[in-house]
Amino acid sequence: MALVVVGSVAIDSIRTPFGEMNEGLGGSATYFSAAAGFLCHPQLVAIVGEDFDLHELDFLRERGVDLSTVRTVEGKTFRWKGVYEDLNEAKTLATELNVFQNFAPELNDAQRDAEVVFLANIQPTLQLSVLDQVRKPRFVAADTMNLWIQSAREPLLEVLRRVDMIVINEGEARMLADERNTISAAKKIRDMGPRVVVIKRGEFGALLFHEDRFFFAPAVPLETVLDPTGAGDSFAGGFMGSIACASCINDDSLRRGVIAGTVMASFAVQGFGLQRMRTLSSAEVQARYSALCEMMRFDHAPLALA
Amino acid sequence: MALVVVGSVAIDSIRTPFGEMNEGLGGSATYFSAAAGFLCHPQLVAIVGEDFDLHELDFLRERGVDLSTVRTVEGKTFRWKGVYEDLNEAKTLATELNVFQNFAPELNDAQRDAEVVFLANIQPTLQLSVLDQVRKPRFVAADTMNLWIQSAREPLLEVLRRVDMIVINEGEARMLADERNTISAAKKIRDMGPRVVVIKRGEFGALLFHEDRFFFAPAVPLETVLDPTGAGDSFAGGFMGSIACASCINDDSLRRGVIAGTVMASFAVQGFGLQRMRTLSSAEVQARYSALCEMMRFDHAPLALA
Repeated sequence: MALVVVGSVAIDSIRTPFGEMNEGLGGSATYFSAAAGFLCHPQLVAIVGEDFDLHELDFLRERGVDLSTVRTVEGKTFRWKGVYEDLNEAKTLATELNVFQNFAPELNDAQRDAEVVFLANIQPTLQLSVLDQVRKPRFVAADTMNLWIQSAREPLLEVLRRVDMIVINEGEARMLADERNTISAAKKIRDMGPRVVVIKRGEFGALLFHEDRFFFAPAVPLETVLDPTGAGDSFAGGFMGSIACASCINDDSLRRGVIAGTVMASFAVQGFGLQRMRTLSSAEVQARYSALCEMMRFDHAPLALA
Repeated sequence: MALVVVGSVAIDSIRTPFGEMNEGLGGSATYFSAAAGFLCHPQLVAIVGEDFDLHELDFLRERGVDLSTVRTVEGKTFRWKGVYEDLNEAKTLATELNVFQNFAPELNDAQRDAEVVFLANIQPTLQLSVLDQVRKPRFVAADTMNLWIQSAREPLLEVLRRVDMIVINEGEARMLADERNTISAAKKIRDMGPRVVVIKRGEFGALLFHEDRFFFAPAVPLETVLDPTGAGDSFAGGFMGSIACASCINDDSLRRGVIAGTVMASFAVQGFGLQRMRTLSSAEVQARYSALCEMMRFDHAPLALA
């Protein structure tokens, strides 16, 4: 199934306790595509400024990502500058919207027929404009963040009513649902529209809530995490890439989506910006997937009760 | 295999955001036995004061727990008073050691031959005195806490050198190992002696580290958690009870131990003190175990990479 992602391609400056990156490649749709590209051939809808060197995206093209709808327009590329005091939370130092200010995502005719669509973390109104363009998607998922929960709640609720799945951080899920308990929050968000809710818990993994059933995946244990930026986008890329190549979308393929996403996120955090995702090989992906399976394996025979 | 647990039987007073319990049954060995009693017939070594109504433990006897080495001595029973501002951390308001001040755990002759031994969270010097008494255990595990890491590090390190497994909270593992990263901490603790390290992550589940391999289990998702007291002890009870009835102690049985512990801990937190553990049935345990298996199930077929 064809997968279209709409989101940002950005220039990031990042500092973490383990180093820094100045004006490097970033953006939600970039991470997403870098991950999804291992599983299918995603089509990237995004916008960059004249200052952006499109060769930066060559590795995506080589991975099979369709970049024909990455538009270059007058002005400067979207920039984000952030710092991580610890690895659990980014503090934004500066956001320059630049060309993103007038971004009106436009899908080409073939993309409007895409079966699988991912709305990366952009303004809910832009997400809605994409939803207005697609004709008969089988599975649409969206990401969001605290900024939109607080400043654009109404359009966000409209997005929620129109998507099949929401991918959201645990703290933001609690904020959105106004619930302290994550399980209660997941159920309440499900009642807002999406039949599938995926809650990202950072180093504690991810939780899938679908048809009153839960599935949990731990994060891959890592001794060295350099930069958490893009972990969630890479997770979403692995997830949606896996969904796009599944023969049907059901509880089993959603679970495998969580696992694929978990694997991808684990690589994203091992380098600054897209450094690790850039050099990643299929063999490395498959090996880490096997290791994750092994970490979750146990004998399901009934308990021998006294 | 015979399972002996040495720890506390206590009278607890607890307040959480969801209610309180005044002078109710508590104690690490009590929770442990209540959980382990579903899987084997643990023998409880503990001490209570003259003010303790032994009928409070009748439900343990009915569950097959051997209480013949619970001694009543002159004085008052060990008391703990704590409050949870949120559910993640207990704040101790008062600890009255009482009879525990002069506790010198004494195993009877048969208990000295026990194959499986659990040293609940008591002073490391007492844990060492138990280790001096056992003759040829096949598997010895210990719990500990920040208090001993800070105030009794030397005897604790001696305990670590002499046990097969340590069960420890995530924050305390980092403190013990002086490592910010949990995976690094687990490895460092393994190098201190125990070949198996189990790290408890509260609502995020548990991590087993054994022979360079990791296993992760999520916590059972609960919408209502009334009182986290005893969750770790109940986890240990389920774990060790499962080990004691395993035909051999290997990676598979250790993993099943984590799962059994996870199930037991999920019940402990659903009532104040031992309320929920007291009324728990085998059928409920088996049903929740099945639900947990279902939450961790996914198709392990290789990823279909593009």
